[in-house]
Amino acid sequence: MLHASRHGVDSHGVRLLPFYVDCLKTGLVKGTPNITVSKLRAAAAQVDADGGLGHAPTYRAVQAACALAKEAGIGLAAVLHSTHFGAAGAYALAGAEAGFHCLVVCNSGAFVAPFDGARALHGTNPIAYAAPAAAGSDPFLLDMATSAIPWNRLLLARTLKHDLPPDVAVDRHGDYTTNPETAQLLAPVGGPRYGYKGAGLAGMISIMSAALTGMRLDFEQDGAALGDTELGHIVIAIDPGLFGDPAQAAERVAAYIRAAQALSGDGRVVDAAGGPQWRHKAERDAHGIPIPAALRAELNQMAGGLGLPAL
Amino acid sequence: MLHASRHGVDSHGVRLLPFYVDCLKTGLVKGTPNITVSKLRAAAAQVDADGGLGHAPTYRAVQAACALAKEAGIGLAAVLHSTHFGAAGAYALAGAEAGFHCLVVCNSGAFVAPFDGARALHGTNPIAYAAPAAAGSDPFLLDMATSAIPWNRLLLARTLKHDLPPDVAVDRHGDYTTNPETAQLLAPVGGPRYGYKGAGLAGMISIMSAALTGMRLDFEQDGAALGDTELGHIVIAIDPGLFGDPAQAAERVAAYIRAAQALSGDGRVVDAAGGPQWRHKAERDAHGIPIPAALRAELNQMAGGLGLPAL
Repeated sequence: MLHASRHGVDSHGVRLLPFYVDCLKTGLVKGTPNITVSKLRAAAAQVDADGGLGHAPTYRAVQAACALAKEAGIGLAAVLHSTHFGAAGAYALAGAEAGFHCLVVCNSGAFVAPFDGARALHGTNPIAYAAPAAAGSDPFLLDMATSAIPWNRLLLARTLKHDLPPDVAVDRHGDYTTNPETAQLLAPVGGPRYGYKGAGLAGMISIMSAALTGMRLDFEQDGAALGDTELGHIVIAIDPGLFGDPAQAAERVAAYIRAAQALSGDGRVVDAAGGPQWRHKAERDAHGIPIPAALRAELNQMAGGLGLPAL
Repeated sequence: MLHASRHGVDSHGVRLLPFYVDCLKTGLVKGTPNITVSKLRAAAAQVDADGGLGHAPTYRAVQAACALAKEAGIGLAAVLHSTHFGAAGAYALAGAEAGFHCLVVCNSGAFVAPFDGARALHGTNPIAYAAPAAAGSDPFLLDMATSAIPWNRLLLARTLKHDLPPDVAVDRHGDYTTNPETAQLLAPVGGPRYGYKGAGLAGMISIMSAALTGMRLDFEQDGAALGDTELGHIVIAIDPGLFGDPAQAAERVAAYIRAAQALSGDGRVVDAAGGPQWRHKAERDAHGIPIPAALRAELNQMAGGLGLPAL
């Protein structure tokens, strides 16, 4: 949660805390799971989340994947029997901070339409990739959902009675709509013409996270709330020393980021993936994480229910 | 080329043959490269393409990655010093036909704008993923560029004097345009609002293919023609027997594909990634690959120049 809040990804930040507390209180998520890590092959491991929150076991998976990659060149660690793990980028970044290129994907319960469809096939199925960059540059950090927007953006539009953009949600007939009240499902990134690309990526992530691991496909579990889920998360680490000096690979990542930034000008800010998030992090590390009044009230209500002091 | 033509991906099909012949005749691409495969670690190999076409070395990389995955659970093979390799999906499918989940990415010379930029940062940087499905179902097969459309679609619009869709190309100021004459660069998938996702994926692929391997970044080589290139291709294979019975994993891939297809109705055809391509393949295997008159003339001109009989 702090990774997300510090990087400005508020959809996955501290606002999730009351939700997680509710999941733990109702028993939907195990509060004291027995997390186990098993090496399967020279380059593969599995982490059993035992029905707890996905965060701790996925950090364990990052450690395992990086250790395997150090020896074998590439390492895969799959988290099984998991639930919500927050922002995928947190784990990819942990891999980069340990010195590795790191890919993280995860499926979720379904509330995203397929391309040209009227019923849910996919979750927001994120993909994250981080890579260490040479000194002076923050790591490359991609963290994106394969839907155009997150579900809570749609909920926010309902609350504020704002129109949605034209290519982010469909109604119950599968037609694109800007009305948040009639919008039933999110649309894949790419919209009415190129949404088969977003849907294809979501399918790939579903197959990696669930079909490969024996966990549930997106549409086999509820996407709107954290109900009875069996999610898989995939972490793949690659040793940047595989093809030469890892410092040189880090310099090349930094060269890519600098080249992107150098295309800024004429009022346009161009950056590599992660650039806006790193600017958020600098600002929030200096000035703190803004907590809107409604969230503060929600956090205080939660704290009161747990006998904890208010914010 | 035949993979692409049979699957209906005509942009990467037999129309590329005269282009490849020209590259070989001019010496831009080596006709008799010394392709070598070296195992680097327990789960990693590299294939040196020695400046030849990317096709043969990438099939060798698929074999190497699958052999490594069989032992280590996951295997990575990188093709170095390569040039054009055609359709990424051909190699991912070869991995699936060998019984593995297979991810393939590749960068290319730059002619795609970054998000909100006016100069080229990325190539069309494709991502492909294929996975074996249980008997009765074709494999899952995603093969997509991270630009909205391919470059030759823009060239075709110029030839036919057709407008472009509104969110696929930008002019020299970086503004979206539907005029194919003023369009200078392709746009990342996601368009003016969500193109940071397509650009982020393109950046990830650039970093995997080039920064990791020591090859050239997209903007360090010419994208419009096959000039002096040093491309990297990444093949990652995963053993579907890692977490249980591989037949069960294949059944789950088929279950995903069936679930997608079951959402068809009310005049909508929903399918998993690859569905339209498998329908093309069935039709073309039965009735042949259509060769438009202009392409036939071009192929015959090429054949004449080589002393070969006409089509």
